[in-house]
Amino acid sequence: KLDELRTQLADLDGPGLVREITRLPAAKRAVAFRLLPKDRALAVFEDLDPSVAAALLSQLRSDVGSSLVHDLDPDDRARLFDELPASVVRRLLSGLDPHEAQMTQDLLGYPPESAGRRMTPEVAWVPSDATVGQAIKRLRRLGNKVETIYMVPVLGQGRRLEGVVSLRGLLTAKRDTPLIDLVADPISADTHEDQEVVARRVRDHGMIGLPVVDHEKRLVGVITVDDAMRILAEEESEDAARAGGTEPLGRPYLATPVWRIVRSRIIWLLVLIAAATLTVNVLDYFEETLEQVVALALFIPMLIGTGGNTGAQTVTTVVRAMSVDDIGLRDLPRVLGKELSTGLLVGAGLALLAGTLAGVIVDARVGLVLGVSLVAVCVLATGAGALIPMLAKRAGVDPAVVSAPFITTLVDASGLIIYFLVARAILGL
Amino acid sequence: KLDELRTQLADLDGPGLVREITRLPAAKRAVAFRLLPKDRALAVFEDLDPSVAAALLSQLRSDVGSSLVHDLDPDDRARLFDELPASVVRRLLSGLDPHEAQMTQDLLGYPPESAGRRMTPEVAWVPSDATVGQAIKRLRRLGNKVETIYMVPVLGQGRRLEGVVSLRGLLTAKRDTPLIDLVADPISADTHEDQEVVARRVRDHGMIGLPVVDHEKRLVGVITVDDAMRILAEEESEDAARAGGTEPLGRPYLATPVWRIVRSRIIWLLVLIAAATLTVNVLDYFEETLEQVVALALFIPMLIGTGGNTGAQTVTTVVRAMSVDDIGLRDLPRVLGKELSTGLLVGAGLALLAGTLAGVIVDARVGLVLGVSLVAVCVLATGAGALIPMLAKRAGVDPAVVSAPFITTLVDASGLIIYFLVARAILGL
Repeated sequence: KLDELRTQLADLDGPGLVREITRLPAAKRAVAFRLLPKDRALAVFEDLDPSVAAALLSQLRSDVGSSLVHDLDPDDRARLFDELPASVVRRLLSGLDPHEAQMTQDLLGYPPESAGRRMTPEVAWVPSDATVGQAIKRLRRLGNKVETIYMVPVLGQGRRLEGVVSLRGLLTAKRDTPLIDLVADPISADTHEDQEVVARRVRDHGMIGLPVVDHEKRLVGVITVDDAMRILAEEESEDAARAGGTEPLGRPYLATPVWRIVRSRIIWLLVLIAAATLTVNVLDYFEETLEQVVALALFIPMLIGTGGNTGAQTVTTVVRAMSVDDIGLRDLPRVLGKELSTGLLVGAGLALLAGTLAGVIVDARVGLVLGVSLVAVCVLATGAGALIPMLAKRAGVDPAVVSAPFITTLVDASGLIIYFLVARAILGL
Repeated sequence: KLDELRTQLADLDGPGLVREITRLPAAKRAVAFRLLPKDRALAVFEDLDPSVAAALLSQLRSDVGSSLVHDLDPDDRARLFDELPASVVRRLLSGLDPHEAQMTQDLLGYPPESAGRRMTPEVAWVPSDATVGQAIKRLRRLGNKVETIYMVPVLGQGRRLEGVVSLRGLLTAKRDTPLIDLVADPISADTHEDQEVVARRVRDHGMIGLPVVDHEKRLVGVITVDDAMRILAEEESEDAARAGGTEPLGRPYLATPVWRIVRSRIIWLLVLIAAATLTVNVLDYFEETLEQVVALALFIPMLIGTGGNTGAQTVTTVVRAMSVDDIGLRDLPRVLGKELSTGLLVGAGLALLAGTLAGVIVDARVGLVLGVSLVAVCVLATGAGALIPMLAKRAGVDPAVVSAPFITTLVDASGLIIYFLVARAILGL
């Protein structure tokens, strides 16, 4: 049985192995992990989600765990420590050599989700008074000790960042060229900047790495392009979760216990069901109208469903456009214009269809009520779907928390009011 | 006025300038573009969304346009040609030198969204019988003509890919080492593979570039890490759109005319409103029950809203977990188990709250009806939200098309059936 598992694991490539270890139930994970050859074990441990790595660590012998933690890069180690109890962190820190321990503690000193927390502190840099030849020689020596030598910060007095050179630039230049001739103005990040902003900077500028500096412009680390890709993937997962009206799990699905899944969802559901009591009030208020024409009730789910769907479409589109910086706050009038026009047009199309249907099933006047209400609800939904995330951003709230379910619930109650007012007017109740 | 605009544009960095040109109305875009110095203009043109670049091209003098197109990389040019009318493409191709024209046509020969379509055909490679010193010499010579020299494919007889070396590996090795001693087994992509799969391979393996080979394992190009980041961002935008029940716009929001926005949404709305007629049928069927206890109508929006929200949460979580490969088809039983348990638990919590509310507003028996129905609807919604995207994947359909609005609408009708059956049983109608 164990031999079978060992063969099966040996056939997997790096990412496949990480996935397989992650999806195993916690009890089996340590068993599988122990079957791996030492170098593969470290590579897997580095790439595991920190929550999974932390759980695994508690199941390994303490000396095995310490040795794994010792071999991690400082940034991966800091992310792991975030998931561990303070007492375990203290024990592990005391087992590290002082330089490694210090680097890790420095990283943990930066705020969560900041560039400082995610950067690699071990950087290959070159002094600004060097020549190209001297720089290359230095990089050959440092090559195996740092994460990247392709983007090279150039430092002046007191480790101050003066610019960057690319290894490509160095290699294609003459050896005796002064470095300063090749230096490009650095695009950099501050230690306290948000990790997502910084990762997007790496992507937008097509960079291999981005120097991270402190408030005195001294180099303290680098965010590499793989860090950036990992950060962006995490942030996308968070945004996707919020769009569906849940808190992000922050860990792989199969490694998340049910109580954590429930916790990530129940908060929003409670908020939404509280908001939905508005619909009960509205219907209660119009109960007499409803009793007179019970047929009106037939179309309530269709009407508010359509409003919800239209609102979900708008909010998804607008939140995404904001998150990729296609639109900003100053574009509010243009966005609102586009969305209200869209609402009017799709509303008219749907009203024609559903109004006719209601006309056939009940009578022409109820068909008219439904048609008019649908147009109004669609315009309301697209308007609210555009306005609310933009106002959230204005108020300093991440627009991603304005989810489709939130807009849907909001539009439900107001859609019902419209429906009954239109019904009263047209049916003369 | 123009001077003001010129100053304003000069203050922006590269990505900022691309965003600003993109968000200008089409008529102003050409004006602003002409104000840019020549090298900035090319850099911006390269980074514009292909649809925007195509629109801009039609507003520029034809010789200016030809010169821009001439200076593009072959892969960017192919993407632009995709957005242009065939007659314009023919004219532009005839203006290119034969080698550039051939490279572009080769790329356009691969299927859309394939690795071949997105790769850079200009690659720095080294022959497998070279030494490290010879390889470095070759890379120094090619350095400025290719997109990357950091990941270097090693080719044997007939351009067959034998492996890759990193520039870092070359630089830290002795000059007379035979290259073959450094070569790592290549992770590569086939020309016809899906661009998203390939981009994720780049991310998962933390690569700078991925060699692309034809069916005889001959090197034909490379997908660089910036290509991968761009592809992933596009695919994330598509998934986000689908999650909200719309077709992806495939272009920046402000550069999309209203008729295109309407087109991206109306299809799904029509499908959903057609599905919503089921709710009309269900209510029609139970109309007598509804007439007897009109108070039941009060809680319809709350009940189906909650079902929809719970379903939206599940489908969002499950689709995301599938898209990041956290779960696969073989995990169906575990996923279903987790989701049904979650549904039961959140349903019970919500039932307690809403059931009490209904008990107070109407009476205890209606409260009981609502509570029981809520539990059933939540379990139904989490079950459907887990099952349907996984069945879609099994059927070879992208699970991302199973949107929250789709699940919501589906759960609405079945939720109503449950509600009225429970009501009939408990109220003895």
